[in-house]
Amino acid sequence: MDRLDERLKQAQEAVERVLERLLLRPPIADDAAGGTQRLVSAVRYAALGGGKRLRPFIVLETARLFDRTGDGVARAAAALECVHCYSLVHDDLPAVDDDDIRRGRPTVHKAFDEATAILAGDALLTLAFAILADPSTDADATVRVALVAGLAKAAGIDGMVGGQMLDLAAEGERLGEAAVKRLQAMKTGALFRAAAEAGAILGRASLPERDSLARFGAAFGLAFQLADDLIDATASPATAGKATGKDARRGKATLVALHGVAGARALLAETVAEAEQALVPLGLRAAVL
Amino acid sequence: MDRLDERLKQAQEAVERVLERLLLRPPIADDAAGGTQRLVSAVRYAALGGGKRLRPFIVLETARLFDRTGDGVARAAAALECVHCYSLVHDDLPAVDDDDIRRGRPTVHKAFDEATAILAGDALLTLAFAILADPSTDADATVRVALVAGLAKAAGIDGMVGGQMLDLAAEGERLGEAAVKRLQAMKTGALFRAAAEAGAILGRASLPERDSLARFGAAFGLAFQLADDLIDATASPATAGKATGKDARRGKATLVALHGVAGARALLAETVAEAEQALVPLGLRAAVL
Repeated sequence: MDRLDERLKQAQEAVERVLERLLLRPPIADDAAGGTQRLVSAVRYAALGGGKRLRPFIVLETARLFDRTGDGVARAAAALECVHCYSLVHDDLPAVDDDDIRRGRPTVHKAFDEATAILAGDALLTLAFAILADPSTDADATVRVALVAGLAKAAGIDGMVGGQMLDLAAEGERLGEAAVKRLQAMKTGALFRAAAEAGAILGRASLPERDSLARFGAAFGLAFQLADDLIDATASPATAGKATGKDARRGKATLVALHGVAGARALLAETVAEAEQALVPLGLRAAVL
Repeated sequence: MDRLDERLKQAQEAVERVLERLLLRPPIADDAAGGTQRLVSAVRYAALGGGKRLRPFIVLETARLFDRTGDGVARAAAALECVHCYSLVHDDLPAVDDDDIRRGRPTVHKAFDEATAILAGDALLTLAFAILADPSTDADATVRVALVAGLAKAAGIDGMVGGQMLDLAAEGERLGEAAVKRLQAMKTGALFRAAAEAGAILGRASLPERDSLARFGAAFGLAFQLADDLIDATASPATAGKATGKDARRGKATLVALHGVAGARALLAETVAEAEQALVPLGLRAAVL
């Protein structure tokens, strides 16, 4: 196994370990115990046992640049993943993207029901902030509240949720480059950016270092989105491990739709270079890419 | 206008003022501007221009006990209201309680659409934490992070969202007293409790003072829920200003269903006494009740 694979696996294990512990509930004896059990099961189903865990990986790797490792960093990484997982649960709902399969299993509203999926998503988003605000994430309240502020900004109207709204509103429209870039920076870039900034915050980075990592995270997120859109446009379901060709069928606003496959590949190379370039001031030669 | 009415009006004005300012967005020039505008409109529709603002009122009044007033307290009050408003938007969805009318107007998914309502709710929940984490709420990071921790706990699996799940799961079931009390303490009590604790946190209350206010808030919340359930069971739509008799039709698990109207009235009197009693250690004679 090469180094990158190992580090990714570490991120996956860290997220599972933290969330396993946080999603244990003692048995309840009253007549409503079944409802509580059902919600906890749906949240566990949504958050455990799958996913690349790329955002946690970015948190762990950026914190490691400042020699920060351990349980607190793993908790912050898990919080970012909670926000990602909640967004998948809500995006998959019939009223939104209407997806039945995610990571090879029924989506939460298929495995449970729509109301449970809505509430499980809400619970995961809320849990993310509970994790970050808890002293076991970092002893310094200034650090914890900076993590909360960064995640709330990245996940909110001007970030991920706003981007998802643009994505929906744009179905069947032909958006220009500026609009597609804004959409993707909000929908995908903002959370990756917050992940890289979380590592910087946990690592007590200087403001210029934090800025560099924020630019790295945003570029990494866009590169990821471009790669994902290219897979959707070009790969067979067997190669991709999921249904492909969905963006074109839905008329999604992507850079592949705008520039074609070759153009999007060129943009991907540029974006990766941009991510690498952002790390130069930190004295790094793109160690994690 | 009596003193209580005046204070409630102050709370309403404070929430409107804070959220009006936070929900302004400069015009955007790209092709996706319409999507952003639609989400912001839905969030404004959900959060502005209506509601009793009881939770903000509790934040303002408990903070005032410690001579804390002003914009920071109003922001914290608005954050609690954002969580309440998001919960209404998601609860009203067709897959959850399926309500078309709220505060005399179409619910968010009726005025916009289901996907927009889901995302607007998500945006409001996220906004609550962004508000609390911002230095303009309180200069002290310890205070801000305590507000975040308190709200996240109250709103999450072991609080409001968990209670809503129990409420749904219990439709048509006949829950016992312990289960109904747990349901209501989670669904309604937790957020009122967090509101009272927020005032204590902003006021730099001692731990015993904070505990007293937490007990006050929880009891106030249960009293409010009991009163609301009694109105649903006994009032005409004209008197109540909304549809009534809904709980019985849906087979909702309430204390009115369990103990009858007279029994629930007796419990309400007990719960109000409990709320008043909780204020005694603070040297107060239930000034706000």
